Amino acid sequence: MDHDVVDTLISPEGRLEVLSKAEVTKLLDTSQGGLYQVFRNCALAVLNCGSSIDDGKELLERYKSFDISIVQRERGIKLDIKGAPAIAFVDGKMIKGIHEHLFAVLRDIVFINSEITDNPKFDNSLSGGITDSVFHILRNANVLRPQRNPNLVVCWGGHSINRIEYNYSKEVGYQMGLRDLDICTGCGPGAMKGPMKGATIGHAKQRLTGGRYLGISEPGIIAAESPNPIVNDLVIMPDIEKRLEAFVRTGHGIIVFPGGAGTAEEILYILGILLHPDNADMPYPLIFTGPETSRDYFKQINEFIGATLGEAAQQRYKIIVDDPEMVAREMQVAIREVREFRKSRSDAYYFNWLLKIDEEFQRPFKPTHENMRALSLHKNQATHLLAANLRRAFSGVVAGNVKDEGIRAIEKFGHFEIHGDPAIMGPMDALLSSFVEQSRMKLPGKTYVPCYRVIQ
Amino acid sequence: MDHDVVDTLISPEGRLEVLSKAEVTKLLDTSQGGLYQVFRNCALAVLNCGSSIDDGKELLERYKSFDISIVQRERGIKLDIKGAPAIAFVDGKMIKGIHEHLFAVLRDIVFINSEITDNPKFDNSLSGGITDSVFHILRNANVLRPQRNPNLVVCWGGHSINRIEYNYSKEVGYQMGLRDLDICTGCGPGAMKGPMKGATIGHAKQRLTGGRYLGISEPGIIAAESPNPIVNDLVIMPDIEKRLEAFVRTGHGIIVFPGGAGTAEEILYILGILLHPDNADMPYPLIFTGPETSRDYFKQINEFIGATLGEAAQQRYKIIVDDPEMVAREMQVAIREVREFRKSRSDAYYFNWLLKIDEEFQRPFKPTHENMRALSLHKNQATHLLAANLRRAFSGVVAGNVKDEGIRAIEKFGHFEIHGDPAIMGPMDALLSSFVEQSRMKLPGKTYVPCYRVIQ
Amino acid sequence: MDHDVVDTLISPEGRLEVLSKAEVTKLLDTSQGGLYQVFRNCALAVLNCGSSIDDGKELLERYKSFDISIVQRERGIKLDIKGAPAIAFVDGKMIKGIHEHLFAVLRDIVFINSEITDNPKFDNSLSGGITDSVFHILRNANVLRPQRNPNLVVCWGGHSINRIEYNYSKEVGYQMGLRDLDICTGCGPGAMKGPMKGATIGHAKQRLTGGRYLGISEPGIIAAESPNPIVNDLVIMPDIEKRLEAFVRTGHGIIVFPGGAGTAEEILYILGILLHPDNADMPYPLIFTGPETSRDYFKQINEFIGATLGEAAQQRYKIIVDDPEMVAREMQVAIREVREFRKSRSDAYYFNWLLKIDEEFQRPFKPTHENMRALSLHKNQATHLLAANLRRAFSGVVAGNVKDEGIRAIEKFGHFEIHGDPAIMGPMDALLSSFVEQSRMKLPGKTYVPCYRVIQ
Amino acid sequence: MDHDVVDTLISPEGRLEVLSKAEVTKLLDTSQGGLYQVFRNCALAVLNCGSSIDDGKELLERYKSFDISIVQRERGIKLDIKGAPAIAFVDGKMIKGIHEHLFAVLRDIVFINSEITDNPKFDNSLSGGITDSVFHILRNANVLRPQRNPNLVVCWGGHSINRIEYNYSKEVGYQMGLRDLDICTGCGPGAMKGPMKGATIGHAKQRLTGGRYLGISEPGIIAAESPNPIVNDLVIMPDIEKRLEAFVRTGHGIIVFPGGAGTAEEILYILGILLHPDNADMPYPLIFTGPETSRDYFKQINEFIGATLGEAAQQRYKIIVDDPEMVAREMQVAIREVREFRKSRSDAYYFNWLLKIDEEFQRPFKPTHENMRALSLHKNQATHLLAANLRRAFSGVVAGNVKDEGIRAIEKFGHFEIHGDPAIMGPMDALLSSFVEQSRMKLPGKTYVPCYRVIQ
Repeated sequence: MDHDVVDTLISPEGRLEVLSKAEVTKLLDTSQGGLYQVFRNCALAVLNCGSSIDDGKELLERYKSFDISIVQRERGIKLDIKGAPAIAFVDGKMIKGIHEHLFAVLRDIVFINSEITDNPKFDNSLSGGITDSVFHILRNANVLRPQRNPNLVVCWGGHSINRIEYNYSKEVGYQMGLRDLDICTGCGPGAMKGPMKGATIGHAKQRLTGGRYLGISEPGIIAAESPNPIVNDLVIMPDIEKRLEAFVRTGHGIIVFPGGAGTAEEILYILGILLHPDNADMPYPLIFTGPETSRDYFKQINEFIGATLGEAAQQRYKIIVDDPEMVAREMQVAIREVREFRKSRSDAYYFNWLLKIDEEFQRPFKPTHENMRALSLHKNQATHLLAANLRRAFSGVVAGNVKDEGIRAIEKFGHFEIHGDPAIMGPMDALLSSFVEQSRMKLPGKTYVPCYRVIQ
Repeated sequence: MDHDVVDTLISPEGRLEVLSKAEVTKLLDTSQGGLYQVFRNCALAVLNCGSSIDDGKELLERYKSFDISIVQRERGIKLDIKGAPAIAFVDGKMIKGIHEHLFAVLRDIVFINSEITDNPKFDNSLSGGITDSVFHILRNANVLRPQRNPNLVVCWGGHSINRIEYNYSKEVGYQMGLRDLDICTGCGPGAMKGPMKGATIGHAKQRLTGGRYLGISEPGIIAAESPNPIVNDLVIMPDIEKRLEAFVRTGHGIIVFPGGAGTAEEILYILGILLHPDNADMPYPLIFTGPETSRDYFKQINEFIGATLGEAAQQRYKIIVDDPEMVAREMQVAIREVREFRKSRSDAYYFNWLLKIDEEFQRPFKPTHENMRALSLHKNQATHLLAANLRRAFSGVVAGNVKDEGIRAIEKFGHFEIHGDPAIMGPMDALLSSFVEQSRMKLPGKTYVPCYRVIQ
Repeated sequence: MDHDVVDTLISPEGRLEVLSKAEVTKLLDTSQGGLYQVFRNCALAVLNCGSSIDDGKELLERYKSFDISIVQRERGIKLDIKGAPAIAFVDGKMIKGIHEHLFAVLRDIVFINSEITDNPKFDNSLSGGITDSVFHILRNANVLRPQRNPNLVVCWGGHSINRIEYNYSKEVGYQMGLRDLDICTGCGPGAMKGPMKGATIGHAKQRLTGGRYLGISEPGIIAAESPNPIVNDLVIMPDIEKRLEAFVRTGHGIIVFPGGAGTAEEILYILGILLHPDNADMPYPLIFTGPETSRDYFKQINEFIGATLGEAAQQRYKIIVDDPEMVAREMQVAIREVREFRKSRSDAYYFNWLLKIDEEFQRPFKPTHENMRALSLHKNQATHLLAANLRRAFSGVVAGNVKDEGIRAIEKFGHFEIHGDPAIMGPMDALLSSFVEQSRMKLPGKTYVPCYRVIQ
Repeated sequence: MDHDVVDTLISPEGRLEVLSKAEVTKLLDTSQGGLYQVFRNCALAVLNCGSSIDDGKELLERYKSFDISIVQRERGIKLDIKGAPAIAFVDGKMIKGIHEHLFAVLRDIVFINSEITDNPKFDNSLSGGITDSVFHILRNANVLRPQRNPNLVVCWGGHSINRIEYNYSKEVGYQMGLRDLDICTGCGPGAMKGPMKGATIGHAKQRLTGGRYLGISEPGIIAAESPNPIVNDLVIMPDIEKRLEAFVRTGHGIIVFPGGAGTAEEILYILGILLHPDNADMPYPLIFTGPETSRDYFKQINEFIGATLGEAAQQRYKIIVDDPEMVAREMQVAIREVREFRKSRSDAYYFNWLLKIDEEFQRPFKPTHENMRALSLHKNQATHLLAANLRRAFSGVVAGNVKDEGIRAIEKFGHFEIHGDPAIMGPMDALLSSFVEQSRMKLPGKTYVPCYRVIQ
């Protein structure tokens, strides 16, 4: 029974936390300016790991009595937890991986509040200031490891893929683990979990005890994608744009597994960055892969990219169908080039300072009817800017279909109206329809009704 | 392509080996008294891990040109390997786990030869002398770890079980890994691999970096059951009886998954020991388990035991169908009793000195026609002796059906003739038939023809 | 020859540093607002370790060409060093301990600048704000270790004590090392080095590989008291008052070896704190100790304290002459009480939050003629305030005798004039005279002339 | 008070011991064939460490009630100790280093008895068999570490040297520790302790936590030279010749500090080996060193060697007076040549297989009147054989002067009569007289009377 709850008192081991009195006070402060709410909700998400709920609101309602507080003890702090989901425990003892995640959440929330927010040294209105925030949060989370060779592969893809695709992602992870590649994902289920599980076996066979399974999340998504306990480095970024920036600056290559509109959004994000003229010479391995059954899926993606962003964009990735070993091998070889490139430019292995990320990709996009209507979806602009706008369009579609706020807006104001060049909107329509056919749009128990209309 | 071969030169890391000149000479000695043949064959089996051949002879023929030799270097020895199966390598580099296994094989062969064989201190004609050999080989392999609490679960079962049973064994391993239980098996595929793979994930989630995956093999079986690379403690015992003794003295509990006649043999071995009056008070957890589809299998086993060894024997095990979590929980609780028992008697946690193993179970049995005919299969004897004789009967059946030597003997001299009480032979016949029906007798491409006849 | 210099390029190992671009820029900035000067001067002091110069100015002049800069490399930063004192090197390779100290200096200077200075969260005008700064600097330096039992003994005393006293301090350190006590000092020579050296041998015999030798310094003093390389935890506090606060909040007990006026100042500092009514119940072990030859020294100190602060002050310390084993034993027992006390109040073992430090002891004192004249040296005040004022008086005397600025002020304006109760000034005069007789006032090649006059 | 005794029960930590029942029985067996006596006496010597008794007999008498026995427990064995010297304890708890030594003694005594003694594989009548025994004992003690570069310096010299010489040996150890050289000695006081203490400080400054302080002892000498607790690798060889062979095969270079006749014996031992024609090309650094006050001592040694073994012998060592840094530097450079040499010949770094040790140096010499009279002390023989005979002559003199058995033989049969070439006996007489003058012959409270007469 999933609704069983457990009370417990836990202390950090391994990743110890030493908090000042002021920090503890802030964490216990349930008022508006306090940190209690965000800490409680993230903690609950972490504890709910492995459960099938992927709806944040449902989670919060189910565990209404859940409470977490910090207790100061002579050897450091402890967490006093009431009403936690029983799924986080084995015979009444919290799973160690989840235990660590709770303290990671604590660490990041405290740090972001005390060192980043409102600190004049991190100016959020400047591209450089945002990047600096990302850097400081990652450094504080001990995610930036200077003495290592590049080997971190970011895996993107759907969190509700089917069994065949899931097993395939495990196999790719296994082949990468055998080759001493580490895994970074958004740390939920599906394509975010499979590669880590596979890599664990690969690392075990190679006796690589220091294998890293890095999960990068943010408070808005963690409830729906609660970190699986294999993740042994968890970091909570303050928002979705900083999370994406953390992926592309810490990872040394990216693999995209099948997914839905969210995955398309991620593909447009990375392509938009790589198409920026300043990044033209930078090696950045990007592989789309899946089992035989996903061949069509990637064909459609590829056609859509060709039709909208053109051949130059297609040059920045490879599609490999049904060959995990080749995926791992290609990635390994390509990462060696990344290493050479960074070396020749004295850029850090652990943080890609040289990657140019346009402010367009750092600033949040709110998918209101107005913003959707204002999108520039035509070819009279640099392709990386078109990619940015396409990403926003997909972002709006995802919101209109599945996010609470988006759905309500559609109900109230009707369909989003998107102005767009038919040469772009046609392929976009086609792609979204194919996602629906392949059941890749997350629509629990409903038939898909498009939430937008193309206006010409 | 499996027949691809690789040449390489490897040196030990982690488990270092320092050999004397005399030891190196002995290992390179290809004459009768030398160790080269056994070392070469075991090494080849280790390297063939993961391949589908499970026939020792086929293996040796396929890699005829395989050669391994020891080279003395200033930092210690290296192994010079020619013609090794490509399957042991990832992009030309030997998988680290296999690499370690090679040196484990080397270590045990050298030790057994120089310290055990022909050493008057280990008298093979005495029960105590045999046990002492087992102890010294395990100690030298660093398998006996004094500062640990009992947590080692031996997993037995078939090496060619079906997918459902395999996945079930993984799930049981996972639940045990979550509970800090370690795994010991015969180290081949199937029920010997599943629990280790599952436990690897469980240990990773609990951050148990010291998880043990102990494989115990012997030169006669290693080619058919080559150790999977997750095994991180491998020991090669000199013969099958010492291997079995190693299992029951180092393990703190035993789980039996579905299997065939070989598994039945193992069940009779452990029951025969536990039924010895000296062991009457000793807690020794023994659980038979499998998925729903194996319910009948265990029912038949249970009936056979009831019919032949009686209710007392049935008291020594539990059957749990389709509940991995309960298996793990029961095992954990039962092992706590083992701990209390050893503590109260100051018996070592790492080696079960108190377990009485009758010489009947330590002495090899050769399944010749004569020996098969001489078996005492009636109830006018202590049940533990009947168990010993039943075990031999199954051993003969296995040999007559699948072992090279046994098959040829049957061809030459006809069926084994077994004298036996109908109250015993009936159930035995029934059990074997049910194995055949369930395809649990390994008979590649042939219909099963019994190799024995019951004589009354 | 001490003036030999070495050029080198070093990278961090063990204590790695990951700096942002903005941080590197700030460190290389030689302008007023930049950090270059303070970083360079501290680095030079660290490199000069073991040399006999204890005059900061002389040091800077001798190594005028010394230069240090930060270089960004793909695996992290490196330090490019020119003209470093040869004494820091063995056969051209920097001593590892000194190597670590350089990166510790870097870490603290960067942190203090970017997180503490000008950060509204640390209000230097409030006692709590100062304590919070101290806490954050120590936490960032990884000095606060939550899972340890209290065992850190602060050792104070002169940096130019004689051979007999030095050997005695080594022996005390040895006896403490044997008892698993760790050492914290101001990290220069003399009484700051002896206990660490002794403890190293004691720890080695007890196989305590994690023994801590914590040095706490500050930019103004580090040139004169350069950290000896045994120090394996070095932290640079921003000023002398925060340094003293760091000592008394991280240490679990204090030992005072013989010294001069500076040591008297430290004694008055800790007594002033312990005499605060809020600290009345707090156990805080304080032992004055030295060899037989220092018996008189401590007798005079004790008499001075009795005459000025009274018997209550004398209750807070023990004097043990010539018995290192008893010192260590007493300290060990007393620290167990500290542990009980903190446990009962859930105060951290690693940071003494409960200790009340009056603002009087947190605010810097500038020994100008005016400030000296204004000191309240009479008994019509709480003893802890009298202690604060006496400490300032000694501070002024030290400055007037040995500090550059102080000496020049005396030359220009004549003697300090101190108003004081004869019952206080008499004993103070006597104590200072006895220091002169015992050559405890650092007056290189000069006869001692008092720098103050008592006005009644 | 030294005669205080302590009772305790200790269990191994770190170096765990797992014993079989047969081994425990043998250790508790107090009969002639049992191991109890030798184990008890060695254990007592280890516990007496740091005391000033260096007379084995006196030690045994003082602690008559001392008793040690092995107790089997569920986590392994424990040692039950009664009446142990209080000096081994700090506040009732055994010093960890001594604790480890006890288990090292146990390990070696068990191993030598069960694997070496009476094992036909180690033929003591053959040079190769003796070397093989030495190798196996060292390997079992984990002293042979294959992955390290050569860095082990053997330090020889007197155990009762004066303070100046002792401090000098510490300084040499310090300089070697700074250069990552490890120390091996006979593990008693004086020149065996100083270098280890110095190296401990050097290693601490260089953060070399794996520094080795290897002590090689044997049951006959351990009471007089009880291992100081800094020794972190202790091995007990079965006799003096195997102990010497262990020194020269594991060490990569030798430093000789001042000593007495015993030190002269050691010098003749190593020179005799190095002068063997087979060793002519082998680099083997050998440095004689001491403070200024020992200049004459080494001058006399050098003259004696020149007069007896000739210039070729003098070529094999360097004398460095009063320059610890140069000693360390020379040793470091010379060991690099050792490394090159071994590499070029694929000889192990951890065991000098190539060094030819003549049987003359492996066989024990009993200094009876008959054997002394039969010595060949003339130049009509290979110099390495003359060295062997000279070594025996010194051995006899040491025995006649200080060893119980020797003294009694002299009392009974009169002076040893030594036949010898005057060109040899003259210098020998002179050398011994100079030792007496310098108080280097251990003659407690007696005037020196030569115990031999030269017969021509």
